[in-house]
Amino acid sequence: MNSYGNLFKVTLYGESHQPAIGVVIDGLPAGTKIDEDLIKHDLEQRKPKAIGTTPRKEDDIYRITSGVFNGIATGSPIHVMIENKNVKSKDYEHLKTHPRPGHADFVSEVKYKGFQDYRGGGRFSGRLTAALVVAGSFAKMAIPFKIKHELSQVGTLKDMTKLDDYLLSVMEKQDSVGGTISLTISDMIVGIGEPFFDKLNAELAKLLFSVPAVKGVEFGLGFEGVTKLGSEFNDVIVDEHGKTKTNHQGGINGGISNGNDIHIRVFVKPTSSIQKKQDTFHLKAKKVEVLDIGGRHDVAIVRRVGIVLENVVAIALLDQYLMYKAYH
Amino acid sequence: MNSYGNLFKVTLYGESHQPAIGVVIDGLPAGTKIDEDLIKHDLEQRKPKAIGTTPRKEDDIYRITSGVFNGIATGSPIHVMIENKNVKSKDYEHLKTHPRPGHADFVSEVKYKGFQDYRGGGRFSGRLTAALVVAGSFAKMAIPFKIKHELSQVGTLKDMTKLDDYLLSVMEKQDSVGGTISLTISDMIVGIGEPFFDKLNAELAKLLFSVPAVKGVEFGLGFEGVTKLGSEFNDVIVDEHGKTKTNHQGGINGGISNGNDIHIRVFVKPTSSIQKKQDTFHLKAKKVEVLDIGGRHDVAIVRRVGIVLENVVAIALLDQYLMYKAYH
Amino acid sequence: MNSYGNLFKVTLYGESHQPAIGVVIDGLPAGTKIDEDLIKHDLEQRKPKAIGTTPRKEDDIYRITSGVFNGIATGSPIHVMIENKNVKSKDYEHLKTHPRPGHADFVSEVKYKGFQDYRGGGRFSGRLTAALVVAGSFAKMAIPFKIKHELSQVGTLKDMTKLDDYLLSVMEKQDSVGGTISLTISDMIVGIGEPFFDKLNAELAKLLFSVPAVKGVEFGLGFEGVTKLGSEFNDVIVDEHGKTKTNHQGGINGGISNGNDIHIRVFVKPTSSIQKKQDTFHLKAKKVEVLDIGGRHDVAIVRRVGIVLENVVAIALLDQYLMYKAYH
Amino acid sequence: MNSYGNLFKVTLYGESHQPAIGVVIDGLPAGTKIDEDLIKHDLEQRKPKAIGTTPRKEDDIYRITSGVFNGIATGSPIHVMIENKNVKSKDYEHLKTHPRPGHADFVSEVKYKGFQDYRGGGRFSGRLTAALVVAGSFAKMAIPFKIKHELSQVGTLKDMTKLDDYLLSVMEKQDSVGGTISLTISDMIVGIGEPFFDKLNAELAKLLFSVPAVKGVEFGLGFEGVTKLGSEFNDVIVDEHGKTKTNHQGGINGGISNGNDIHIRVFVKPTSSIQKKQDTFHLKAKKVEVLDIGGRHDVAIVRRVGIVLENVVAIALLDQYLMYKAYH
Repeated sequence: MNSYGNLFKVTLYGESHQPAIGVVIDGLPAGTKIDEDLIKHDLEQRKPKAIGTTPRKEDDIYRITSGVFNGIATGSPIHVMIENKNVKSKDYEHLKTHPRPGHADFVSEVKYKGFQDYRGGGRFSGRLTAALVVAGSFAKMAIPFKIKHELSQVGTLKDMTKLDDYLLSVMEKQDSVGGTISLTISDMIVGIGEPFFDKLNAELAKLLFSVPAVKGVEFGLGFEGVTKLGSEFNDVIVDEHGKTKTNHQGGINGGISNGNDIHIRVFVKPTSSIQKKQDTFHLKAKKVEVLDIGGRHDVAIVRRVGIVLENVVAIALLDQYLMYKAYH
Repeated sequence: MNSYGNLFKVTLYGESHQPAIGVVIDGLPAGTKIDEDLIKHDLEQRKPKAIGTTPRKEDDIYRITSGVFNGIATGSPIHVMIENKNVKSKDYEHLKTHPRPGHADFVSEVKYKGFQDYRGGGRFSGRLTAALVVAGSFAKMAIPFKIKHELSQVGTLKDMTKLDDYLLSVMEKQDSVGGTISLTISDMIVGIGEPFFDKLNAELAKLLFSVPAVKGVEFGLGFEGVTKLGSEFNDVIVDEHGKTKTNHQGGINGGISNGNDIHIRVFVKPTSSIQKKQDTFHLKAKKVEVLDIGGRHDVAIVRRVGIVLENVVAIALLDQYLMYKAYH
Repeated sequence: MNSYGNLFKVTLYGESHQPAIGVVIDGLPAGTKIDEDLIKHDLEQRKPKAIGTTPRKEDDIYRITSGVFNGIATGSPIHVMIENKNVKSKDYEHLKTHPRPGHADFVSEVKYKGFQDYRGGGRFSGRLTAALVVAGSFAKMAIPFKIKHELSQVGTLKDMTKLDDYLLSVMEKQDSVGGTISLTISDMIVGIGEPFFDKLNAELAKLLFSVPAVKGVEFGLGFEGVTKLGSEFNDVIVDEHGKTKTNHQGGINGGISNGNDIHIRVFVKPTSSIQKKQDTFHLKAKKVEVLDIGGRHDVAIVRRVGIVLENVVAIALLDQYLMYKAYH
Repeated sequence: MNSYGNLFKVTLYGESHQPAIGVVIDGLPAGTKIDEDLIKHDLEQRKPKAIGTTPRKEDDIYRITSGVFNGIATGSPIHVMIENKNVKSKDYEHLKTHPRPGHADFVSEVKYKGFQDYRGGGRFSGRLTAALVVAGSFAKMAIPFKIKHELSQVGTLKDMTKLDDYLLSVMEKQDSVGGTISLTISDMIVGIGEPFFDKLNAELAKLLFSVPAVKGVEFGLGFEGVTKLGSEFNDVIVDEHGKTKTNHQGGINGGISNGNDIHIRVFVKPTSSIQKKQDTFHLKAKKVEVLDIGGRHDVAIVRRVGIVLENVVAIALLDQYLMYKAYH
């Protein structure tokens, strides 16, 4: 449900228009130095600023209420809360009857029997990822591995130097686009991952798919590798540390890290909220009607989601690294 | 580690050359009618028979030692064991020094400190998937949903009517190929999936990636959807049951089933074991040497793995369906 | 670690002198009516007021920051926070060198390598039980069972009408006392509890022992039953609902509720903090020294802990009730 | 349900009259030397031999089918199976209509809707504890702590040298008795136990209460400590290793081991099956009738259960020791 992890455990709460969102971070080793600059830096990357991101401002001022003492983790669970300051009192009730295409409005209404907090998408709002980013920042403070993310494609655009212009053209159409993000984990060691079910790739995929809008995850060559023969795909080991000549497997064999960089590619679908009018079924009128969401939304949430993906990777890595340490 | 699930819990054990592999299946509702034909039918699909699969024979005779009484689930954990009959006494010790490219030999040697049972790939052998298939067969007996799998591409081949010829050509090259498999879940209801971390897509992906050789998972349009605008990608709801005009999202919104069919595509890499000689690092001689695995292996494991993927999907579905039932 | 439960999941955080304590409550069914009077009533019972309890005041003003909308549970995790208002800036550093007998000061210093927040007992403070009480209040809102607790013995005193006088005499000695508390669960149904390991008694005991100061738990006749013969101990079933003539088993057979009332008795040790001087080992001076804790402590924490025990029982019951509902 | 543990995970299956019982043991460190003499020695202690135990013979021949190679743990899950050889074909169907007092017959019939395997008590048979003993033997191979158990009282008898005579007298009455067992864990280190919910005492209690017939668990002085004042109860620390002058707390503070011996006392109720006739409700006839179980049962199961308790303690200890190692 809303907790993840075996030894490093992250419990998320919050809804878009409730007083606060937050996260309980359990299992960070006592003695871990807390790097608040890292937290701020990571939250900053998630903020809407660039072209193609929403003009709405969220302060994302977090507050640590437990588990840190004199700037160091105490070994007790860390609670971090972010208040929802910029909450408008506008009427959201139409979301219950006019479910937005691509959103969780409809499934939420059915699953939670109409009791969900529908305002601003409630718990399905991208807002919650701010708390997830914070949890990942804490994880990074305790892993010896490095993670980075990079935007590799947005819509039809592959040359990222032209991104602003491309997004301006999408904005003009009152539409949105998705994209792909590449993640690289370096400074890996051999042996992270717990077969059969807690394989490193399986845990990474589970967390990546828990991030809203993610619709595809692949490791190494991924789907493109389908045309390769085994002799081309196999990565030849060239030294006693397990270094391979190529890295088509993406740094993981049998669900266990092989010491080479881990390469992941993630597909993030186009933002569901668009300024353009769309059809939807009106649940009370019982017919298809035109829906005008209005507002100014993220045109390319993919531009902000990279740090979220990077940080959920950190969460999985710390959990598995601690399990590794129990045996080494 | 080797258990999966919250209410429907599957615990897998076994290594290729140990006396047996097996699975403990916990949480199947008391009263579920046991369909042994289904188990046999599913195991049969996994067996190597067609061109491109290994000529080795495994009987896969399973034995239910608990949890079933008069053909009906008792509510107690079900244990199913499959003895490893066809175990050759040949010398496998070279796998410890000559790690096969693409296999888990190297990571296993390091992670388990040389104590792993390396014979025939040990716990990393595809052999264990037989027990996984059985667990999935049991899951299917208790879910109202239907799952089917289909081979959609093998190597460069997209027309599956030419598969035998294509695989014969790969065999001639002493090489192997991978492929993609499409999975469809139908007869879905709205509301399966537990945000934030136990989203339906996240759990499905976790289990699919736990199957050996899986290197990519995508839902709905998947990576191909990257070029679509939001207005094209969004699925318009057209009736009060949530039926959508298109199904680009693959039947899941916000991690929850929306009642439409769920579409998943999985990339299975080329079989690592190939007859062709390959380079690898000799861990004792400390230099790259030529490795001749020999034997006659699966040229296209993708031809057998479909039922494994189908059945892990069933496992995830039953676990989440039981969670759903706790609240409905 | 700091999370409990399978479907109804409680995650606790906080330390005595950090900004706040709190709890994330996951899995409360959407649509559950939130009874704030119950929360307040339960917290009130835990407050020090009566003779024998500490004169320190804690406001215990809780704040619900998510998961409740229009007074009803949304199905999203509920976060409740209680700020630590009454935190004195006094110097607690001596607790690191002069571990208090009966407290967790010493084990905490060793386990957390000196990084623990030692102020006021940190995470081992009874303070955290306020958040636990709140979680239990929420659980009560969704179970059809009734739970009550009763003080059955305090120190040598068995007649509770004389409690105030008895405790005044203990206070005069600058000492403390423990006691026993009886818990009764009524309106039970048959079938709650999940053998083998999640038996109802096992889960109840786990949660009861997680409450600070609990050192004994028994069901039904408990230890006193040791002198009975089987023919005396066995509870004869007298109707088709499973009603029994006697209830020596305490309402549970084979780890499953049998529909009769569940009877539990809990031993709570004497409060560790006493006004009287005590010896302890000075970790820096490396010798036994006299320790003067000072202050005015709870003389009988047992007088306040009943509601905590009652409410952890509610937590276990809701979790198991939801599991039951998944199958019924 | 039927799995226990976080890193060291034990999954139990089996019913009295099914083909086999067994256990999957996951997380035993690769490289652990397997001591088969220990397994046999432990199983031997559980066998009925002494006066007051059942004359029925069970061979308890176990078979390890995975996870052990050349006498050493491979790091893969270990499966151990014990076939149910001595299974009589006698008619047990009356247990469905004549629930035995003190047994799980009635609750099982209701909870599992009549589908349970009722023969010989099914999954509620003490038979399953043989597999539990085996799991504990494996745990002992990987912990640096020592555990021992001792019978401290049987019925009204406290002088164990007179046990045979005492039990003969009970047998003459066609009745049964319970008793108390003392457990001691020595060679402990400081720091085992994971507050808040996975406290060492909480996990030990959970596992002890999962053993059939256990109705009370106490640590240190236990319930007898109720008459002590705090100044008497508190254990004074006398050296830098945390050694205490007394050990009233039973070696645990705040849920964490303090390095002193851990003392636990467990109450085991009288065996429910007695030769003497008893009343019970006939579920079909809808009236109370006399029940004659017949057979020759354990008069004092408490004489055999000590090793089961000892070994579940080992299971909890290894799981928590591995968690400890993840952080140290």
